[in-house]
Amino acid sequence: MHVLILGAAGMIGRKLAESLAARPLDGPSIDTMTLADVVLPTAPAGFTGSAETLAVDLATPGAAQSLVSSKPDLIYHLAAIVSGEAEADLEKGYRVNLDGTRALLDAIRHQHDRDGWTPRFVFASSNAVFGGDFPDVIGDDYIVTPQTSYGTQKAMCELLLADYARRGIVRGIGLRLPTICVRPGKPNAAASGFFSGIIREPLAGLEAVLPVPDETRHWMTSPRSAIGFLRHAATLDTTTLGDRPNLSMPALSVTVAEQIAALEAVAGPKAVALIRRVPDPTIARIVAGWARAFAPERALSLGFTAEASFEQIIRAHIEDELGGRA
Amino acid sequence: MHVLILGAAGMIGRKLAESLAARPLDGPSIDTMTLADVVLPTAPAGFTGSAETLAVDLATPGAAQSLVSSKPDLIYHLAAIVSGEAEADLEKGYRVNLDGTRALLDAIRHQHDRDGWTPRFVFASSNAVFGGDFPDVIGDDYIVTPQTSYGTQKAMCELLLADYARRGIVRGIGLRLPTICVRPGKPNAAASGFFSGIIREPLAGLEAVLPVPDETRHWMTSPRSAIGFLRHAATLDTTTLGDRPNLSMPALSVTVAEQIAALEAVAGPKAVALIRRVPDPTIARIVAGWARAFAPERALSLGFTAEASFEQIIRAHIEDELGGRA
Repeated sequence: MHVLILGAAGMIGRKLAESLAARPLDGPSIDTMTLADVVLPTAPAGFTGSAETLAVDLATPGAAQSLVSSKPDLIYHLAAIVSGEAEADLEKGYRVNLDGTRALLDAIRHQHDRDGWTPRFVFASSNAVFGGDFPDVIGDDYIVTPQTSYGTQKAMCELLLADYARRGIVRGIGLRLPTICVRPGKPNAAASGFFSGIIREPLAGLEAVLPVPDETRHWMTSPRSAIGFLRHAATLDTTTLGDRPNLSMPALSVTVAEQIAALEAVAGPKAVALIRRVPDPTIARIVAGWARAFAPERALSLGFTAEASFEQIIRAHIEDELGGRA
Repeated sequence: MHVLILGAAGMIGRKLAESLAARPLDGPSIDTMTLADVVLPTAPAGFTGSAETLAVDLATPGAAQSLVSSKPDLIYHLAAIVSGEAEADLEKGYRVNLDGTRALLDAIRHQHDRDGWTPRFVFASSNAVFGGDFPDVIGDDYIVTPQTSYGTQKAMCELLLADYARRGIVRGIGLRLPTICVRPGKPNAAASGFFSGIIREPLAGLEAVLPVPDETRHWMTSPRSAIGFLRHAATLDTTTLGDRPNLSMPALSVTVAEQIAALEAVAGPKAVALIRRVPDPTIARIVAGWARAFAPERALSLGFTAEASFEQIIRAHIEDELGGRA
């Protein structure tokens, strides 16, 4: 099987390629991987098949056709301009996040019209499609009313994907990814960064800033679970999705206080003492507009799974990023 | 005030222009109307201001800029490829219904960025944004999962409109129009055509075919109410829409049997005898996938109103189309 990963240089794309190289899918084996991103991705170590890496901008005319010309069996579309940049640069966000996705689906459509090729298309959507007024727990039937351009672009792509899947052009699945925690690497400027920072930094013996109240609740899952979702989407029977290929993924609804209690249970009070409370009303206001919990019954019934406690999320980070030692 | 109507040659566009010419809005008076469509619209009789009519294809490069260059205060965007054609011709549907709307909103954005112009933008969406599994009565919080390309394009435009309204580029309102009944004119090929046909034809002394069971339930309102929605959207305080500018419009949930009973009450058994039952399983299956009722609480609370009985709908048709005589 030939797998194409778009956005393969990002954190999730890199981990997905590594996971597919290290461990077979519960299905056909992968003999070819094409890894593409705006910066050149790295081929995963230990992959016994053939790997090609490409630096390509999906929004460039002709790029989408070129990417699908080898007719991969499975396409992961993870590439996107992130939330902050899509809000600051309206044109770039729509060009990459909407037009890029549409160019990809249209390139598939043209090939499909020629020879009936119908690849599996796994699209990384986001909980950012939800916004504004919503209940404490968002069910699978709740309306999508994004309050950012990024969320709007993801929601528009979900609709396009559903239409192209309905028409039989792709076997499509859209996964609304929760906030990923603990994100490995350096602190970044994302408003959500502290959810990871208050765990990752203390585990590394470093101070971390907490800008929101301890009772702040959010919906998060580990990088390991996110990779699990993407792997599961590779082999799931797409006919079971009915007329709704876009799914809210499972995760854990947890407060900052519960995150800190789990950190103490795993790494002791010295780790917790490294968290410094520096209230930031701007970040608190942004975070207050985010979904706090979901009831992702469809995804659960389709076999998607996530961690059941924040301690599990911390232990996954320690195992996957810190060589098992906190 | 300068009003631009796109789709002014269609049934609703024509009636809207006539209504605006005949009766002032509850607000600033209209001194200029620009009426545009792919075929040249007719200027409404009796309009005392200045009227310009244009034959223009919104999907043509440069057409949107040209249309907004005179900076109308109020833009009605009613133009669209209809459902059947958008399903049969994927590229044309996306080009006109999605790209045309986006071109229009982007042309406004460019002018807005130059001088702060922020027109009111009233978008005709459709109940076709709903599809697949839905409850007997669809509430304002119910998810949008269209099952046609037309519905998909309308839903994508709703999202785009909401994002541009949130950014302050337009004062946007999207109206999800119900099925219009009684549509004046000749029978057409639309699957929904019989809902009007079984009233309009018997009132004209003609036979009408009923292809679905009498217990079939649907959500419909008169052309008069649809014009009322569009007029109300012209003066509504858009700040009251909050973060959700797209609204399901009120209408009447009625069965075919109730339609026929109302016809008998208004026009007697001789009219009803002109309805011929010719079951058509294809049409019955299509209609079974359509929404049967809504609870449009937001629209009702914002002052949108529709008929409360099907007799009222028939009497509106008799008054507006038949000179008051059935």
